[in-house]
Amino acid sequence: MTRLFNDPASFTEDMLAGFLDANARYVVGVPGGVVRATETPPGKVAVVVGGGSGHYPAFCGVVGPGFSDGAVVGNVFTSPTARQAASVARAAHGDSGVLLITGNYAGDVMNFGLAVTELANEGIDARFLTVTDDIASAPVDEAGKRRGIAGDFAVFRCASAAAEAGYSLDDVERVARTTNAATRTLGVAFDGCTMPGGEAPLFTVPASTMGLGLGTHGEPGIANHALPSAAELADLLVDGVLADAEKLPPAIESRRVAVILNGLGRTKYEELFVVWKTVADRLSAAGLTVVDPEIGELVTSLDMAGCSLTLTWLDDELEALWTSPADTPAYKRGSVTADPAAHRRTAVDAEAAVSEQITGDAESRIVAGHIVSGLGAVHRAVVEAEDELARIDAVAGDGDHGRGMVRGLTAAVEAARKAATAGAGAGRLVRDAGEAWAAQAGGTSGVLWGAALTSAGKRLGDNGTPTSQDIADAVAAGYTAMLDLGGAQLGDKTMLDAIGPFSDALTVAVDRCPDWRAAWRESAEIAAKSAAATADMVPKVGRARPLAERSVGTPDAGATSFALCVTTIVDLLAIH
Amino acid sequence: MTRLFNDPASFTEDMLAGFLDANARYVVGVPGGVVRATETPPGKVAVVVGGGSGHYPAFCGVVGPGFSDGAVVGNVFTSPTARQAASVARAAHGDSGVLLITGNYAGDVMNFGLAVTELANEGIDARFLTVTDDIASAPVDEAGKRRGIAGDFAVFRCASAAAEAGYSLDDVERVARTTNAATRTLGVAFDGCTMPGGEAPLFTVPASTMGLGLGTHGEPGIANHALPSAAELADLLVDGVLADAEKLPPAIESRRVAVILNGLGRTKYEELFVVWKTVADRLSAAGLTVVDPEIGELVTSLDMAGCSLTLTWLDDELEALWTSPADTPAYKRGSVTADPAAHRRTAVDAEAAVSEQITGDAESRIVAGHIVSGLGAVHRAVVEAEDELARIDAVAGDGDHGRGMVRGLTAAVEAARKAATAGAGAGRLVRDAGEAWAAQAGGTSGVLWGAALTSAGKRLGDNGTPTSQDIADAVAAGYTAMLDLGGAQLGDKTMLDAIGPFSDALTVAVDRCPDWRAAWRESAEIAAKSAAATADMVPKVGRARPLAERSVGTPDAGATSFALCVTTIVDLLAIH
Repeated sequence: MTRLFNDPASFTEDMLAGFLDANARYVVGVPGGVVRATETPPGKVAVVVGGGSGHYPAFCGVVGPGFSDGAVVGNVFTSPTARQAASVARAAHGDSGVLLITGNYAGDVMNFGLAVTELANEGIDARFLTVTDDIASAPVDEAGKRRGIAGDFAVFRCASAAAEAGYSLDDVERVARTTNAATRTLGVAFDGCTMPGGEAPLFTVPASTMGLGLGTHGEPGIANHALPSAAELADLLVDGVLADAEKLPPAIESRRVAVILNGLGRTKYEELFVVWKTVADRLSAAGLTVVDPEIGELVTSLDMAGCSLTLTWLDDELEALWTSPADTPAYKRGSVTADPAAHRRTAVDAEAAVSEQITGDAESRIVAGHIVSGLGAVHRAVVEAEDELARIDAVAGDGDHGRGMVRGLTAAVEAARKAATAGAGAGRLVRDAGEAWAAQAGGTSGVLWGAALTSAGKRLGDNGTPTSQDIADAVAAGYTAMLDLGGAQLGDKTMLDAIGPFSDALTVAVDRCPDWRAAWRESAEIAAKSAAATADMVPKVGRARPLAERSVGTPDAGATSFALCVTTIVDLLAIH
Repeated sequence: MTRLFNDPASFTEDMLAGFLDANARYVVGVPGGVVRATETPPGKVAVVVGGGSGHYPAFCGVVGPGFSDGAVVGNVFTSPTARQAASVARAAHGDSGVLLITGNYAGDVMNFGLAVTELANEGIDARFLTVTDDIASAPVDEAGKRRGIAGDFAVFRCASAAAEAGYSLDDVERVARTTNAATRTLGVAFDGCTMPGGEAPLFTVPASTMGLGLGTHGEPGIANHALPSAAELADLLVDGVLADAEKLPPAIESRRVAVILNGLGRTKYEELFVVWKTVADRLSAAGLTVVDPEIGELVTSLDMAGCSLTLTWLDDELEALWTSPADTPAYKRGSVTADPAAHRRTAVDAEAAVSEQITGDAESRIVAGHIVSGLGAVHRAVVEAEDELARIDAVAGDGDHGRGMVRGLTAAVEAARKAATAGAGAGRLVRDAGEAWAAQAGGTSGVLWGAALTSAGKRLGDNGTPTSQDIADAVAAGYTAMLDLGGAQLGDKTMLDAIGPFSDALTVAVDRCPDWRAAWRESAEIAAKSAAATADMVPKVGRARPLAERSVGTPDAGATSFALCVTTIVDLLAIH
């Protein structure tokens, strides 16, 4: 929801005041909106865009060289008034006419239409056109009734670049109309946005579904779908846009397309990039070449969750305009530091491959097989506990512990299986598992577990069945490696507080009783108790103190997952 | 929440694949992350940044000329492995050493530390430092333990710019350390983020509160506050950062500051600009000069709601670095089309002021006073109904109707009061109210109500008490103005479907009975019934057909608010 405002009634004015202050280099305020900080030079057509606010960077964020000359700024999701539109156009106008462009909404059509009449009465050659890219908002036989959504950006951009290049008003208008007729968008919504001061979102989308054919003013979609995977969504968007272009061929027949994958506000860059990979593959498979794609937030809808895919078919003229330089508060294109002498990388440096002879005697290879089973069981247990571990870790840490353990164990199990297949002994297998864990898991616990397993593997060796003493020594070697590497001490509320007691107990127990299984069971109980006892501790390392204090009452996530691992082995031993 | 992914376990790889495809002009992938698409030239120090992903544009989005040479990309909120860090640093390294920089997190410290050792063993002069800007994460006497949050950006930027400028590794490291010691950040969180595939957010913030001192990995704040206004939040952030700088003076003593107002993901640009206005005023009042502020999303935390304020005190060297050109996928600075001959605008063109004599005879001025009361009552009724009107409008429209009515009526009441004070008659007062409504409300309904009142006012005139016939004629004139302007017909499911029946009924009723109050009451009932009956209609204009069909069952918002207005007048007449 929209949480930050002073008075909801003055949200737009307050927003504009902040925007103008921050971007004084680019823009100045005029009644009704903003214009470039520099005057429109003689001979240059002015392009003025606009609409309601709540869509940043549309519309005031794209005023500047290479882009628009002015933006009319209405209230949130509300058309500006005719007076505002005329005021901004008047201020932006040089001596060569002005083109006003908005999305196709009744309020904009009416107010900008009145403004054009007013400007004409004053002797200014003013034109107006609306963008109609949203294929979900009307069928192909009523394409003129379609709404303007993210395709606004493509039309504004090409028309503005044409004006910057010195085109006449007739030609700027022609470019704008052609770009609009060559542009198609399809969008989806996952959740609605709230107006500043609003109690509830303008619409909601049922959980695990999405609305197909969103609007950018809080209009919900036209049909509900089950929430797809990123790849399925990419398919749906590409199929939808291409099918529409089959039915109503774009104004430009070409295999080159400008593409916008636009985030509505709450659907973030990383998600868009995941979707983009499939979009790029699908467009390439359809024989289309993508030119300078834009993946990000260009036409938002406050904090709405959702995204849209826009294609603009390009001829040589539009491609030159689409890729021309621009320098505005929110959108900049054109390399400032391009060095033609720079060497483009042609190949990717690979990591040095480490190759080593894999050997293990028959006995040790049998043990290695048992360890693979054990790692597999631990992996399954941790996968099941992942969410719980994340919750515990989130109290004072960054919530990544469960995911890190799963990734580390996944890599460790895979490496262990590979080593076993290659004939590795127990020690080598554990070392490989440790290295894979450290390499794949990342995070603090990944590197510590990796180091511990690597040290333990070295101690185990690759010959014969390890004795109970060997096992206890291997555990102790792992514990020591963690102590050396991590810089933490017992009592610091880390995984050491479960591993230390476990290792000590195991050393004592194998001395007393030669059955390592019984010793392990006994020590695992101590590990579980020790892990639980970390709830009373205050963390000492790597965390902010106030967070640390707050975590009292919750056990340490690393200690908890260690106890889970050794307890899982006990369960496995009981079955065997 | 994070909704778009294929397999949560491969989210980072999938994200990276899309990112690399979209930004092939800037970057190439290497094991562990990304490096610039061009080789590091001889003599240039390489700067490699990194950390977990989920923070875009940090960290892979800022690789390119003027910024970093490479970014190590860990899993979501998880430190990269030592192997990944070493791999990216190795690929980015030219012949003059490499500086690795991360936020101060245990996993990053451990893994990047190991990487530096590994690189040193290979003969590469590698250095490592961590950013510690988060003042909420540890007190001043333990500043070295602080986390790195949005201040990462400032340190990465200045160090990278120094490397681009040809500084030696020693000097690049010096710049990085100085920038870090001159940088302070304080942040707040309104709501948590979810990991890809996660069922629940990593933390939640109680409704109407915020957490002070957020982390960027889903760590909640350290203390809960009631949700402030935008201005109060600005005060809190500015006070917090300046108080910390009092206790522990920044490494640079200066009155010039680089400022970042960073959005975490779901707190949007418009909100940040509202906050910014107060931040800018406060910093200016504190005697600080803001240099090239950044207001937007630089270090995000998936879809977390929240923001942070970062100040970096600048000396001449840092200011030159902070403002130097950069060209990366997500961050570009440096005008590409600057024209030194361009005329900077020095004054803002004002709208032509319309001045006209205000006159009205004594009787008409009394009527004007009654109209002011009526408009005031209507205004209060609409303010009360605003949310309900927004809900009705959101079914098929954009949910802005309630807000538009409130804004329009607010402006109309104000203009009417002003006109009454100036001695306007009834007609002039209604015209002024109409013009103010159209100028301030925006949207479709604003311009239509404005035109209707203006026409009605002209018919009313400024002399004598209007007869019942005058009143009915004025309403009819307003209705005709709406018909002429809007292009809609009766039955199109617009406000006309309430106004038309009302106007017709009033015309008939005043003919039958000379008491306009009784006639109005009777006609208002017809307006209310007609408005309710629009629920059975399908809209014909200005809306997408599928949405239009969906709106069957809900009355038109404009018709509903019109009925509310005339009914409110009835209530007022009953009191008089």
